[in-house]
Amino acid sequence: MEKGVLEIYSELNEVDNYIRNGLKSSQDILGNAIIQMLESGGKRLRPALVLTCGRFGCYNKEKLIPLAAAIEILHMATLVHDDIIDEAKVRRGIPTVQARWGKDIAVFVGDFLFVKAFEILTNKTSYDNLKSLAWVIKSICWGEIDQYQARYRQNNSLKSYLRRIGRKTALLFALSCQLGAQECHCSQRDIWNLRHFGRNLGMAFQITDDLLDFSGDPHKMGKPVCGDFVQGIYTLPVIYAINQPDYREKVLKLMKKSTYSTEEVDEIKDLVHESGGMEYGRRLASKYLERARLNMENLPPIPARDYLEQLVTQLVKRKY
Amino acid sequence: MEKGVLEIYSELNEVDNYIRNGLKSSQDILGNAIIQMLESGGKRLRPALVLTCGRFGCYNKEKLIPLAAAIEILHMATLVHDDIIDEAKVRRGIPTVQARWGKDIAVFVGDFLFVKAFEILTNKTSYDNLKSLAWVIKSICWGEIDQYQARYRQNNSLKSYLRRIGRKTALLFALSCQLGAQECHCSQRDIWNLRHFGRNLGMAFQITDDLLDFSGDPHKMGKPVCGDFVQGIYTLPVIYAINQPDYREKVLKLMKKSTYSTEEVDEIKDLVHESGGMEYGRRLASKYLERARLNMENLPPIPARDYLEQLVTQLVKRKY
Repeated sequence: MEKGVLEIYSELNEVDNYIRNGLKSSQDILGNAIIQMLESGGKRLRPALVLTCGRFGCYNKEKLIPLAAAIEILHMATLVHDDIIDEAKVRRGIPTVQARWGKDIAVFVGDFLFVKAFEILTNKTSYDNLKSLAWVIKSICWGEIDQYQARYRQNNSLKSYLRRIGRKTALLFALSCQLGAQECHCSQRDIWNLRHFGRNLGMAFQITDDLLDFSGDPHKMGKPVCGDFVQGIYTLPVIYAINQPDYREKVLKLMKKSTYSTEEVDEIKDLVHESGGMEYGRRLASKYLERARLNMENLPPIPARDYLEQLVTQLVKRKY
Repeated sequence: MEKGVLEIYSELNEVDNYIRNGLKSSQDILGNAIIQMLESGGKRLRPALVLTCGRFGCYNKEKLIPLAAAIEILHMATLVHDDIIDEAKVRRGIPTVQARWGKDIAVFVGDFLFVKAFEILTNKTSYDNLKSLAWVIKSICWGEIDQYQARYRQNNSLKSYLRRIGRKTALLFALSCQLGAQECHCSQRDIWNLRHFGRNLGMAFQITDDLLDFSGDPHKMGKPVCGDFVQGIYTLPVIYAINQPDYREKVLKLMKKSTYSTEEVDEIKDLVHESGGMEYGRRLASKYLERARLNMENLPPIPARDYLEQLVTQLVKRKY
């Protein structure tokens, strides 16, 4: 592994320590919930983007570590609240806050994380960046409400799906890149390319995540197969399948059910695969990754660019 | 009504307009939920405190209206999330966000309000004040989790009850006063007195609110009688009653039930009254109001002081 990449890994440990120290709480449930979330792992993708993008300017570790930590805490807050909506029992193979302590506790654990993130941020970044961040979080809320409203709706369009995942996921990826770059005084051109790199990576990431719902190993993924479908959340491959005349009726019939047997879950999985929905999703994800690569090519060829390249490659390698 | 008080009323309308404009959303559920919350009334006590306390210094309306609006939005956010925990169906006689749109939507409507409040605040107040505010919101989360954890616990102490309502309610009252005063450059002495006035008023307010659970007219209150007790939240008069030897067993017996008939609800109400729990609560609320009056007496005798006096008097007049 290259020196630059090793450095980022070691800094990500510092981010984790910053989060751990910042979130210490003598309220036992709060404290335990936070420790559990931290220990359940997670890829720390957003902090990695902040730290990597800063390297395209006058890198300032002391400035970026709290920022990266705050963005990860914000992300954790949205996960806790997201799991309430999804009624998720496990995430990354570990019981969610709501599964362990109930929805009610999860509401306030999420709020606590939100406020903590803002508390760090107010002291560490400009008003303009704070405004962008507030806008992104409002968009995430909007995207989540939108997704909830669209549940069990059979006529979701590809356009509305892409808009939703843009809000839910890609905006925070883009902002992580932008903040890291801006705080280290990158050129406007580099900031533009890094922000768009982040957005495209985020879109590819969410599409891949949605594909994994139909193919991933439930043990590895730490969540059940077809979990989204069963909850009425129809993602890209389902939207594709329902628009194929040969599959439409079969998919619609399954959509109308209220509970699903193991056989029916397998049937959903098969239909989505056979209709070409998975293949279509893979192509679309590749298109976004291709765009991300184009953004990268416009950046100076420093070691940090290789790390961005690795992120793209890792995403390609995730098993759909 | 005095000129000064009329002025505050008219400024509270400006606060409402500021909130309305700031929270406009083209997402239909978000937009509707917010309009409904605004139109359901509410006393706007916290904004009134901000605006009144500012008058003890170099009053600056342009500065205080956004601040007052942000504090009310924060309060609205905690109400939406609080109603999820309480499973409240109505507030102020109007269906809650969670009753109308479900818990899931309520989570993100609350988040949206939180972020919006921080967005306004970051531009309008100092880092120190933001830090205090973040601390207060964290305390509210803590207080709520604490209250939830203490549900159905028979041995709640008066001390833990007071600590909890301090966190849940009084801190934000205190901070509203402090922010208004600080932003208008009041003297340190006046800021101290105003902050303590707010804290004492907040304690009296929450105790009174808890007493109203056992005595208020459900139509006027807009929420069911003994609602807290039925949900295992044992407030001051219950804690008092359970410590009276003649009532302990009867109260304990009722605590152990999982559902309550109308007769049993009446029995709870009667026990709390007969044991002297209500009388004790009234005395304690008066003690806090007396302290608030002492804080007031140390303030310069300007018209704004009369308005603070009116707030105290109104609280005394609330029917227990």
